[in-house]
Amino acid sequence: MRDLNESSVTDAVIEQMAATTDARLREVMASLVRHLHDFARDVHLTPQEWLQAIGFLTQVGKACTPARQEFILLSDVLGLSALVNLMHDKTAVEQGTESSLLGPFYRQDAPSLALGDTIAGKAAAGELLVFGRVTDRKGKPLPQASVQVWQTDEEGVYDLQKGQGNTMDMRGNFRCDAAGRFHFRTVKPLGYLIPMDGPVGRLVHSQDRHGFRPAHIHFLVSAEGYRELVTALYLADDAHIDSDTVFGVSKALITSPREADPEAPVKGIPSIRYDFRLGIAAAEAAGRVGADPSQIVSAH
Amino acid sequence: MRDLNESSVTDAVIEQMAATTDARLREVMASLVRHLHDFARDVHLTPQEWLQAIGFLTQVGKACTPARQEFILLSDVLGLSALVNLMHDKTAVEQGTESSLLGPFYRQDAPSLALGDTIAGKAAAGELLVFGRVTDRKGKPLPQASVQVWQTDEEGVYDLQKGQGNTMDMRGNFRCDAAGRFHFRTVKPLGYLIPMDGPVGRLVHSQDRHGFRPAHIHFLVSAEGYRELVTALYLADDAHIDSDTVFGVSKALITSPREADPEAPVKGIPSIRYDFRLGIAAAEAAGRVGADPSQIVSAH
Repeated sequence: MRDLNESSVTDAVIEQMAATTDARLREVMASLVRHLHDFARDVHLTPQEWLQAIGFLTQVGKACTPARQEFILLSDVLGLSALVNLMHDKTAVEQGTESSLLGPFYRQDAPSLALGDTIAGKAAAGELLVFGRVTDRKGKPLPQASVQVWQTDEEGVYDLQKGQGNTMDMRGNFRCDAAGRFHFRTVKPLGYLIPMDGPVGRLVHSQDRHGFRPAHIHFLVSAEGYRELVTALYLADDAHIDSDTVFGVSKALITSPREADPEAPVKGIPSIRYDFRLGIAAAEAAGRVGADPSQIVSAH
Repeated sequence: MRDLNESSVTDAVIEQMAATTDARLREVMASLVRHLHDFARDVHLTPQEWLQAIGFLTQVGKACTPARQEFILLSDVLGLSALVNLMHDKTAVEQGTESSLLGPFYRQDAPSLALGDTIAGKAAAGELLVFGRVTDRKGKPLPQASVQVWQTDEEGVYDLQKGQGNTMDMRGNFRCDAAGRFHFRTVKPLGYLIPMDGPVGRLVHSQDRHGFRPAHIHFLVSAEGYRELVTALYLADDAHIDSDTVFGVSKALITSPREADPEAPVKGIPSIRYDFRLGIAAAEAAGRVGADPSQIVSAH
């Protein structure tokens, strides 16, 4: 019978987990325990603070619904989602366009639309055309590639944040043409506060962070035989382009609408052109840093 | 505009949190981000594993009710509660009896009982007398000290685990006499599985751990001007005395009932004698590693 002290307790825990048959689970949990205990020792976590953390995590769990994923939001504001995403990018055999966060507002059941359709349920000022091509790493077009898009409306709100989250708006799934081209209409998205009415918002507020994400349009682009691309295009003129609360922006994903792009397939409205290049995935390296919130709540 | 990579993202997050006015929050969150990111990098956390963790934490949150605290249970099986407890002990100016975990089954509203009363709602085999004194570090009795006790019944089940958790059984609050003495009747507690029907139980199961806690009786002992003591007495003959799933046992807290202790205030039933010594707390160092679950759910 060993008496535990504040340093020996860590080894005792790892020892008790050492019989785990699943080698990966054993490795992950041992590392987790070591880092978690190191953290608690480094800051000398007090019982009150520990209890505050328990209460906080409980509230984060309670805030999760089929329309809201507060734990993903927590991971986002701690930069963990961005980190996992960045590490995942490096597992590609051949990397395409830079990725960005899937975020907590993706939905699996968005409507299929025809090229040229608008994703906006109602007309609004600031109409925008988005067009481009999906190609491989070297620029070869990928016919019939799938392009899923979602974004906020012109007021910075996602459909999932309205009412009970049953509305469907500002999202659509497109199929590229034989030359890998896509185009759709939308309205200019607005930068927005992450949901500030829950425990994660309160944390961000207590950290004196502004809580904004710069305006962006989400993309999930895929084609058979290529690595799925989860990314987003950010608008250069947003005041928070350099201080995204969830660390999703990278230079290569910043765009500015052009007033009259001669190549735009629809004239008379400002347009953004972006070509997405799909890399090639290692056999085992599928996976997204995110999911439809309704799938997470019901999965267990 | 800095482009983030898997190592620079950590500093970017800490930089964005650097404006936090609350110095302690700033320190804790910076350390948390550093250790959390180190963990993710060390094991090269994949998107699927990250998503599994999000789903797991969501389920832990959903399992929390006014009668059940699954996040405390998670902290317990990871040895974090034991660690915070051990660190907290060291903050005492003068340390008394060793502490142990409060655990997730403490209730604030236990009944006040008279010395000699039984805490068992119904008679059962294995009746037991527990008696002793509450003193200061040097053995000076502390009159009218408060002794709160709670334990499983003879089948290893807490009242909170029965039905809707509304039953009140196997707990009581006692007030010592003028000589700091207490005694009460109970039944011999049984070692038990931590709740295995929730996400934490499934984790423990997947780690091939037995999930048992050795039989014990919880105590929360206090007297004005002294440091509150959260501890438990463990029964030596329990098969899991050396492999507690939540790392709460220490040598000094292991006891064995005696058949006929001449000092026992009630004869004819086996008894455990234990004297609790209360230390002196530093001014700022109050706090328990645990709470009544109903207080946590409603606190936010």
